[in-house]
Amino acid sequence: MDLLESLATRNDKKILLVVLDGLGGLPRKGKTELEAASIPNLNKLALKAGLGLLVPVDIGITPGSGPAHLALFGYDPVKYDVGRGVLEALGIGLHPAPSDLCARANFATLAKDGTLKDRRAGRIPTEFCAELCAKLQVAIPAVEDTGVVVRPGIGHRFVVVFQGPGLVGGLTDSDPQQDGLKPLAVASDDPKAAKSVRLANRFVELAAAALKDQDRANFVLLRGLAQPPSIPSMRDRFKLTPACIAAYPMYRGLAKLVGMDVLETGSTWESEVSTLSEHWQGEHDFFFLHLKETDKAGEDGDFDAKQELLEQFDDEVLPRLLKLKPDVLCVTGDHSTPAAKAGHSWHEVPLLLASPYVRASDTRDEFGERACGRGTLGRIDSVKLMNLLLANSLKLKKFGA
Amino acid sequence: MDLLESLATRNDKKILLVVLDGLGGLPRKGKTELEAASIPNLNKLALKAGLGLLVPVDIGITPGSGPAHLALFGYDPVKYDVGRGVLEALGIGLHPAPSDLCARANFATLAKDGTLKDRRAGRIPTEFCAELCAKLQVAIPAVEDTGVVVRPGIGHRFVVVFQGPGLVGGLTDSDPQQDGLKPLAVASDDPKAAKSVRLANRFVELAAAALKDQDRANFVLLRGLAQPPSIPSMRDRFKLTPACIAAYPMYRGLAKLVGMDVLETGSTWESEVSTLSEHWQGEHDFFFLHLKETDKAGEDGDFDAKQELLEQFDDEVLPRLLKLKPDVLCVTGDHSTPAAKAGHSWHEVPLLLASPYVRASDTRDEFGERACGRGTLGRIDSVKLMNLLLANSLKLKKFGA
Repeated sequence: MDLLESLATRNDKKILLVVLDGLGGLPRKGKTELEAASIPNLNKLALKAGLGLLVPVDIGITPGSGPAHLALFGYDPVKYDVGRGVLEALGIGLHPAPSDLCARANFATLAKDGTLKDRRAGRIPTEFCAELCAKLQVAIPAVEDTGVVVRPGIGHRFVVVFQGPGLVGGLTDSDPQQDGLKPLAVASDDPKAAKSVRLANRFVELAAAALKDQDRANFVLLRGLAQPPSIPSMRDRFKLTPACIAAYPMYRGLAKLVGMDVLETGSTWESEVSTLSEHWQGEHDFFFLHLKETDKAGEDGDFDAKQELLEQFDDEVLPRLLKLKPDVLCVTGDHSTPAAKAGHSWHEVPLLLASPYVRASDTRDEFGERACGRGTLGRIDSVKLMNLLLANSLKLKKFGA
Repeated sequence: MDLLESLATRNDKKILLVVLDGLGGLPRKGKTELEAASIPNLNKLALKAGLGLLVPVDIGITPGSGPAHLALFGYDPVKYDVGRGVLEALGIGLHPAPSDLCARANFATLAKDGTLKDRRAGRIPTEFCAELCAKLQVAIPAVEDTGVVVRPGIGHRFVVVFQGPGLVGGLTDSDPQQDGLKPLAVASDDPKAAKSVRLANRFVELAAAALKDQDRANFVLLRGLAQPPSIPSMRDRFKLTPACIAAYPMYRGLAKLVGMDVLETGSTWESEVSTLSEHWQGEHDFFFLHLKETDKAGEDGDFDAKQELLEQFDDEVLPRLLKLKPDVLCVTGDHSTPAAKAGHSWHEVPLLLASPYVRASDTRDEFGERACGRGTLGRIDSVKLMNLLLANSLKLKKFGA
């Protein structure tokens, strides 16, 4: 038990953590997406809030969504490594147990000579992928004594979950990463992985048999074979009763990994905020509200769209959040997704923390990357954000006398 | 030996570390206690000093006085945990050896059925507590071969020290924390603690026998049974000859724990500064001057009193300190005690460091929380303050060639 956990105590104060995915940006004509946005409500809040910057993983490190969120939830993202197979399973809405073994899978085209003609089976459409997965699920309900779950993803991608116990992660991929080569056998250096290796390779054989009449998708490749990390829950660590409101399955899955209650919600911001409002007076004292679209605009390299989404948040979402009167309200992101980079980046993430116990800025700084760099909260590793959220909600006892 | 210790070297420069206990605050009408105070001398000093903020233990962690001071003295406060019994012993002026076992004790009222009627014996007055402790000390000079020291505290509280060797700390409390329950036996999972457990429980029996004619204070409860941590001295680690000037016993005790010479002084700021002046030309090259009253005003929630004490420091104390011409003068606090919170808090602590080798601010910032947040020294863990004090007094050799 670390220091933070040893000091955590329960009270009735409510924390609201709003994650605008990919919030941080880079300037265009001198201003970032956030700095360019017209956000009067956030700026008004910033006057009496603490501002700062979050470092998602480490200086210069660009995180994926998994590590970036684990850090926000107070988990060392380097220690708690969530494998790609697991993230993919979470991303399509599966909730694998720690004893399960998850794999990302591709439909592929195998040539008569046993080499890969196309590692993506001509990028078959999603609907066809779903049909093929249903077919595989019927053909391969289990391998040996181990249940198998096959679920479609997007395009040629799908997920296979081998249901433990007795399984081990960290296996090598069967995908040789290049067309024209033969698929590899899944393997492992770990003697305890013998069964897992055997099941994975047998699954590939059985799938190939089930797909033998297909002209394009006549083979499968497995990658990222991993088990969900065994993660102590936020309930146990922080004595919280946490809830997640997220439209996208992967974030729901990550929240479930750390022991949050995942609330049913719709796919729009409006629907997510309504879910929050409905549950606000209930048992939960920590709400994680995830808003995905800002990241997507950044990924698309669409500065204007990201700016507009931030304005929409300010205009439509924030006023409804403030009406709930959270004891601690934090608005931040998991990482930066600058439109200028059209992808995740390593840049620090703006942080706004409103509570009765912050030292507000004594300048009239607005909410933006550079104002946050001058903020009273300073530059903080994301993994320490929970320290601040718990402290500001008076959920931490004093350390020592 | 860590890096700092390996580089420390002796010279004749003198360091003065002034700790205004609980210095940091929170704003009232836009200004903290320190920001609201009229402190022309500190502000003048700030113009050519380095400013920064100290993080006492970690982000969001509210420290007690023990860990907060150990960090200022260059000791990792999580590694060197000073137990409650030890702090209590230090606080009443005892100086337990590392082999001693210290306990906080309460006089209590035991009902005829063996349950606790009042865990605080009706909060008996301090004078009566002293009488009862004298009685216990006569009745129980030792348990088995182990000397016992009994000393009164405030009200129903007192301290018991079992004099080692052969003792072990980390025992459970006999206090069940609730009236109406039976007192618990002191216990431990550690097989080496058998003797300590036996002595503690036997002490409780002997005390009950000695108190059997009392109507209220007829029983004792033991808590926080701990040994002083074995701490390498500041002399050995930093090649300093350090002295402590503090009116309050606990701070004198903490200073003694890390090997400072504890100078005799009176209970007023005036007396403490006189003690400093008298010893300034002597053998010591590091002076820790502790001023307690700012913390008490904060604990009382008295913003105005704290502000006035800071003004008094600026007007009456600081000019006398400057006359001594310390080579390095540091004015800071152990932690924040905002009047708005009426207790210790997790907020960073203002730091002022005057030496010929600082980068002064290029703005005309005054000494206050938010100016310190913009300061050239940045945001520093308290445990690293000694690095800066030694560096600025040129007491550190170059690392590597």
